[in-house]
Amino acid sequence: MKVRSEQRCFGGVQGYYEHESAIGPMRFSAFLPAKTPAPAVYLLAGLTCTEETFMAKAGAQRVAAELGLALVTCDTSPRQARFPGDDADWDFGQGAGFYLDATQAPWSAAYKMKTYVTQELKALVESELPIANDRRGICGHSMGGHGALTLALSTELYQSCSALAPIVAPSQVPWGQKAFKGYLGEDRAQWAAHDATELVVKKQFAGKLLIDQGTADKFLERELRPQLFKAACEKSGQPLELNLREGYDHSYYFIQTFIESHLRHHAAALQ
Amino acid sequence: MKVRSEQRCFGGVQGYYEHESAIGPMRFSAFLPAKTPAPAVYLLAGLTCTEETFMAKAGAQRVAAELGLALVTCDTSPRQARFPGDDADWDFGQGAGFYLDATQAPWSAAYKMKTYVTQELKALVESELPIANDRRGICGHSMGGHGALTLALSTELYQSCSALAPIVAPSQVPWGQKAFKGYLGEDRAQWAAHDATELVVKKQFAGKLLIDQGTADKFLERELRPQLFKAACEKSGQPLELNLREGYDHSYYFIQTFIESHLRHHAAALQ
Repeated sequence: MKVRSEQRCFGGVQGYYEHESAIGPMRFSAFLPAKTPAPAVYLLAGLTCTEETFMAKAGAQRVAAELGLALVTCDTSPRQARFPGDDADWDFGQGAGFYLDATQAPWSAAYKMKTYVTQELKALVESELPIANDRRGICGHSMGGHGALTLALSTELYQSCSALAPIVAPSQVPWGQKAFKGYLGEDRAQWAAHDATELVVKKQFAGKLLIDQGTADKFLERELRPQLFKAACEKSGQPLELNLREGYDHSYYFIQTFIESHLRHHAAALQ
Repeated sequence: MKVRSEQRCFGGVQGYYEHESAIGPMRFSAFLPAKTPAPAVYLLAGLTCTEETFMAKAGAQRVAAELGLALVTCDTSPRQARFPGDDADWDFGQGAGFYLDATQAPWSAAYKMKTYVTQELKALVESELPIANDRRGICGHSMGGHGALTLALSTELYQSCSALAPIVAPSQVPWGQKAFKGYLGEDRAQWAAHDATELVVKKQFAGKLLIDQGTADKFLERELRPQLFKAACEKSGQPLELNLREGYDHSYYFIQTFIESHLRHHAAALQ
């Protein structure tokens, strides 16, 4: 693990790191509060973002420092592995890994973001940084909200989960359908394991899920559709707090506004 | 005034605007809290920044919303006016206007950032937005800290002033000497009117000045040298709170950490 930078922030340390992973060299970031070891909340970013976006724009470190939480962010796709067309669109390929393990060539050679986040990055930060190895939370925005919900629902690794403006039903919306066709192939039976609305019917998360969604989000009706997930949670008995926030959009100004309540949700489960 | 975007943020509005000014088309940003009219704090950014940097990275809107303060940011130089060599260096020309009115050709044709901030932008936001016209504060980072201190000390416009890691003695440091030679010419007698350490000896600010400075700031000894300003304040009887922050650097992680105390300093004078 190579330290790219470490900067003091709210009495803790904001670090940027790089390591050789199974999917190539990957960059990630961690905020450590003053008192460690601390449980980490993984913050998965949306389309086009990097490990820096959330750390620079969400204003999360203040609350994390107060609550004694570490924050971990990663990139949104492999970067060194390059495939034809991987930068043709902003919603597929580079910057758009969708936090799943691709099964289709050529993507399956490197686009293994689920394994990367849940195994490799987790093992690395819990051994190399003073981050607790017995509990962790996961949160995400947009594509990263899809990641947070699906990784929490399909593993036993996380004790808290929340999402901001998440893609909740990728099999039913254009962003998800495009990604799943490319990464997982045309067989829709393979898609359900990566779709929160499908997953939550089969197995519930051991705790309340928290989602915030702005009503002025331009992607709301076409790509996000939280009511689909809400209906599935009601059907399956999954506790869900879905807050519709009047007039808020999809941006980091929305995230800044509500990240504090999300980190408090995680701290209540992790501390 | 053209609205580029308006986004909900902490119950208020984060707006990006553009207008035709005397120095060409200029972009600026304003955060308005829920309850208006509100007094504004102008936040002047450092080298290479734009009107967006502070709004996106400082995490200031949360506190401004709580305190009932508006925030106003502007770009760091004219952008449409172009002169030979204006993008050759990151510390002169584009993105490096130093909040003064240039007297030397070709810069004097457009680099009038002091007049822009203190007259044109002020008049515009106080007439077009619900911003109070009877009191205002000014704060800045690095080159913007130089701007905040010099504009507060050389006008009667601001009732509160603070700076984060400011250039306090530009006549004595490389960044300032390069800028002043280019914008103001070789005659050092012309520089004093734009140097906080010179200004404060002649006329004090009607209120305590607040400065925070990180001790791990890589520009501290060569470019910032807050002790020069502190000595001048002591000599002239200017109240100054200078906080040296152990281990903090020059970045927005430092700004994020201390912006709350700065906005509370402004609110105490403005509310």
